[in-house]
Amino acid sequence: MEGMLQDIDRLLKEKQFSEVKTMVSNENPADLAVLFDELFGEDFEEKTEFMILFRLLPKDIAAEVFAYMDGDMRRHLINMFTDKELSEILELFIDDTVDLIEELPANVVSRILKHSSTGERKAINEILRYPRDSAGSIMTIEYVSLHKDMTVSEAFDKIRRVGVNKETIYTCYVTENRRLTGVVTVKDLFMADEDEKLGDIMETNIISVNTHEDQELVGNMFRKYDLLALPVVDRDNRLVGIVTFDDAMDVIEEENTEDFTRMAAIAPNENSYFKTGIFRHAGSRIGWLLVLMISATVTQLITNRYDAIYSAVPLLVSFMPMIMDTGGNCGSQSSMLIIRGIALDEIHFSDFFKVVLKEFRISILVCSVLAIVNGVRVYIVYGHNILLAVTIALSIVATVIISKMIGSALPMLAKRVRLDPAIMATPLITTIVDCCSLFLYFNIAALIFHIQ
Amino acid sequence: MEGMLQDIDRLLKEKQFSEVKTMVSNENPADLAVLFDELFGEDFEEKTEFMILFRLLPKDIAAEVFAYMDGDMRRHLINMFTDKELSEILELFIDDTVDLIEELPANVVSRILKHSSTGERKAINEILRYPRDSAGSIMTIEYVSLHKDMTVSEAFDKIRRVGVNKETIYTCYVTENRRLTGVVTVKDLFMADEDEKLGDIMETNIISVNTHEDQELVGNMFRKYDLLALPVVDRDNRLVGIVTFDDAMDVIEEENTEDFTRMAAIAPNENSYFKTGIFRHAGSRIGWLLVLMISATVTQLITNRYDAIYSAVPLLVSFMPMIMDTGGNCGSQSSMLIIRGIALDEIHFSDFFKVVLKEFRISILVCSVLAIVNGVRVYIVYGHNILLAVTIALSIVATVIISKMIGSALPMLAKRVRLDPAIMATPLITTIVDCCSLFLYFNIAALIFHIQ
Repeated sequence: MEGMLQDIDRLLKEKQFSEVKTMVSNENPADLAVLFDELFGEDFEEKTEFMILFRLLPKDIAAEVFAYMDGDMRRHLINMFTDKELSEILELFIDDTVDLIEELPANVVSRILKHSSTGERKAINEILRYPRDSAGSIMTIEYVSLHKDMTVSEAFDKIRRVGVNKETIYTCYVTENRRLTGVVTVKDLFMADEDEKLGDIMETNIISVNTHEDQELVGNMFRKYDLLALPVVDRDNRLVGIVTFDDAMDVIEEENTEDFTRMAAIAPNENSYFKTGIFRHAGSRIGWLLVLMISATVTQLITNRYDAIYSAVPLLVSFMPMIMDTGGNCGSQSSMLIIRGIALDEIHFSDFFKVVLKEFRISILVCSVLAIVNGVRVYIVYGHNILLAVTIALSIVATVIISKMIGSALPMLAKRVRLDPAIMATPLITTIVDCCSLFLYFNIAALIFHIQ
Repeated sequence: MEGMLQDIDRLLKEKQFSEVKTMVSNENPADLAVLFDELFGEDFEEKTEFMILFRLLPKDIAAEVFAYMDGDMRRHLINMFTDKELSEILELFIDDTVDLIEELPANVVSRILKHSSTGERKAINEILRYPRDSAGSIMTIEYVSLHKDMTVSEAFDKIRRVGVNKETIYTCYVTENRRLTGVVTVKDLFMADEDEKLGDIMETNIISVNTHEDQELVGNMFRKYDLLALPVVDRDNRLVGIVTFDDAMDVIEEENTEDFTRMAAIAPNENSYFKTGIFRHAGSRIGWLLVLMISATVTQLITNRYDAIYSAVPLLVSFMPMIMDTGGNCGSQSSMLIIRGIALDEIHFSDFFKVVLKEFRISILVCSVLAIVNGVRVYIVYGHNILLAVTIALSIVATVIISKMIGSALPMLAKRVRLDPAIMATPLITTIVDCCSLFLYFNIAALIFHIQ
């Protein structure tokens, strides 16, 4: 690949286009999309070779490469296309077109719709009405529908006739007045006799999803039932589209990435790391940082209130980072497990007390070990200062317990009030736990050292 | 589902087994596995109704339900099975059997192998030699292989004959002396003439993976190429198995969950939250907590060295949590994005300087905003104390820059030395950043307040 990259770069510069054409026409479209990326980088818009190379691709491969490209490149291509090129690309990729249109400014949308055939325009519009991140917004209308009175061989004929343009032919849908009445797989058809009726062999216990359901649910259904495709129906059980496993896989990845970024106090962003400019990067990070910085004012006020204590025993200050970090880490462990459990549909709000009780029992085990290790360490290192050792050990106990309680409770409460549980991860939990742990630490110290 | 749960519970207790049998035989196996879970909970081993209900399932459904159950339930069932039941279940699920065997103690493995047919035993053994989490360990050998001299209609005949026991029939593999020479999909077969030779229509530009490759790579290939199945070959390009999309989806989820837990300083564990006992939970959390707690000693020593400074200006202590948290959060943001980018194969070690430079530029933007907001706030709140305001603002600048550098560099370095980049997430980054930020903070304060 590396060598090919340099060859193509050189050949393009030498204008040996027919050789480039031969080289690229046997490549996999996904690899070609990567090649475009590596060849032209972030300033592809200024390079004339970009359009030249794209136009050297065979038509069908060009359409697939287009589908694998990221938003910026696709936008640029659409602006540079002739009308003929535009409609050729569109024809081949109805469902990717929809994803694309949702990301585009209005003037580009109207340009696309103008060059779509009536059927495509209707399809695009129908899909466009569904809310963002709903099942409707990720589905494709390119499925095979059959009728229950068809025989197996008639079904095969229809699949042969219409299959070439469909996203999947392996799961077919039996409809009656557009209502979904059965599902039949090509495997079922293979195993049946040629003259059996579909009505007799189809599966009627259908797993489907409503157009307005969240895409997260779609992902969970694919995970749970190992589906190849999931039918999407409207309120009246009319079949309007299907979600295929590859789109579901993208959804699962997208949801995971969103969780990962939210958990790091970053506003989610659909572009990849390198495609996002530094201003956009900074913008998506500053918001939470400011919120958390201002929230830390509470911790600051608490600390300030106890200055008599650490003025009397300055050594106490040096233990603050350890107490805070241990609290933050314990809280993060609990919140991460609960957030992940909620995302995988294993933990629900109804488990609230069960989870909090379980975390309480775990925290007792954890804090015993940490308190003993730390108490002994402090006792030995700080000249057998038993008061200090007890203060640190007790503070660790209180901190671990309270942080595990907070860490486990907040994600479930967030889910309950329809917030994304992922925001209740490390950064916010740390800030909240800091307040509590320092408050407990100073009070325990005040008690043990008899300071008012 | 809720109502059904209660009905079945009641009917089992009243020993109305034939009614239970009718109720369960129309259910989806995945749902039934959930039902077993909800009906019997964690103490299923003590409930006699557990085995009764499982034996009431029709044979083929029983095998599928078995495949959907978690490790503990499957282990219990294997111990309770008669030999006949055991071999029936095994026959239906070669590839799940392999996953299962890897999790089982040796005596159970030998019991299973004893009751497997020669073919199965060979298959299981062949798969078992592959390293944990390799492509070989997750593949199934239940694929359809064809020959390039076959015609399309002969291929259809073979698929009909052998297809019922195969994991997927939709992608078939053309082999010659077991070497993989082509791939042909059922869709290709549909679109071809009945008497065309497979050699003429098969795809010879094959995407495959070696048995010893890591399963993470398998997941990435499914994501990149939208595959239905991926052939697994040995060193000599002999086809030994395939990975299907549903197994790949499980792998992706497993890798994500592993990343999530590692990032929260928890040792990964394959069971779900509720299935893991509190001792196991505590055990997988204490290790990192202890390591991080001991590492915090460094921060403690640094803090201690500067006690002259905070004894002179006690107000400085109260800003410690805010400085530390801001540093931790900034570092986490960078490390999370880099870790995710590495996992999705978007960021490589060769991008090291590009990434660190980008993070440096972002950190300049971020720290400017945070320093100004905080400097102004401190100036206003603390009676126009300009020295304090400048100290805090400069400390924020230094902390944000250093933490973003550390947060972006460490995951890439970890990858470079073949550690999981996910360990370089929040907890470890926070501990490292704490040292640096407090060191900078106290030195800046010493400089500005002229304290030695």
